[in-house]
Amino acid sequence: MKKSHLFIVLSLVLLTKFSFSQKVSIDVSEVKKFMILQEEAWNEGNLEGFMKYYWKSDSLKFIGSKGISWGWQTTLDNYKKSYPTKAAMGTLKFEVTEAEQLNNNSVFIIGKYFLKRADGNDANGVFTLLWKKFKGRWLIVVDHTS
Amino acid sequence: MKKSHLFIVLSLVLLTKFSFSQKVSIDVSEVKKFMILQEEAWNEGNLEGFMKYYWKSDSLKFIGSKGISWGWQTTLDNYKKSYPTKAAMGTLKFEVTEAEQLNNNSVFIIGKYFLKRADGNDANGVFTLLWKKFKGRWLIVVDHTS
Repeated sequence: MKKSHLFIVLSLVLLTKFSFSQKVSIDVSEVKKFMILQEEAWNEGNLEGFMKYYWKSDSLKFIGSKGISWGWQTTLDNYKKSYPTKAAMGTLKFEVTEAEQLNNNSVFIIGKYFLKRADGNDANGVFTLLWKKFKGRWLIVVDHTS
Repeated sequence: MKKSHLFIVLSLVLLTKFSFSQKVSIDVSEVKKFMILQEEAWNEGNLEGFMKYYWKSDSLKFIGSKGISWGWQTTLDNYKKSYPTKAAMGTLKFEVTEAEQLNNNSVFIIGKYFLKRADGNDANGVFTLLWKKFKGRWLIVVDHTS
């Protein structure tokens, strides 16, 4: 390979690596920001707003106490059943334990949730999320909550 | 950019994409093969053999009914507590629902487990796994089982 060619190839490799590490912090920040917006929507009793950050597809996977369920609508319906009132929804707080960007379009999150309710019937647990970027928008494609 | 340079760059991009898609099926097959070896070790009552496919690090994360626990040794100790005898371990069967390679060194798995015991006290559930490649060896770095 000519020296000039080698230079182009090396520059491209370095540029790709540099732009990826820059992208990572931006993307992870964006996902974390969306999780704060999710908390806000939840705490306003706005389940549809909370669900805005889930992939609107029949291929969305939600893994909870009942096993795997597929699809955005099913996930919303299950949330509505489990949290029929604003009081039942309580106040949600996420705590991100680990956030890792696995490629340009995938971020993996490990976190905890804390749900406080006025009647003292609090709940908490752990979740792992796989977020993917679709046309510039980050959305949850797999939610495993236990 | 000269035509010859453009040709080199395009060739590299295509070669990378082609070699990645070839790698994907090989890597996913390898992970699936390891899960079969895990079943075999479990069904021989060999917990250490089963644990061979987990990252031997304090950073390994196991998320189960008790929340997040960290570390290979803790995970092994917890398995020993929960499954003290070969009878308690029963017969394990994995069913892989989805396997996706997210980058050269990461494979994400969604699956179900079925545990049959002689006394009829069967168990089953869902798991999500993040496998990573370390020096050519695929190992589980996050196991979320519920």
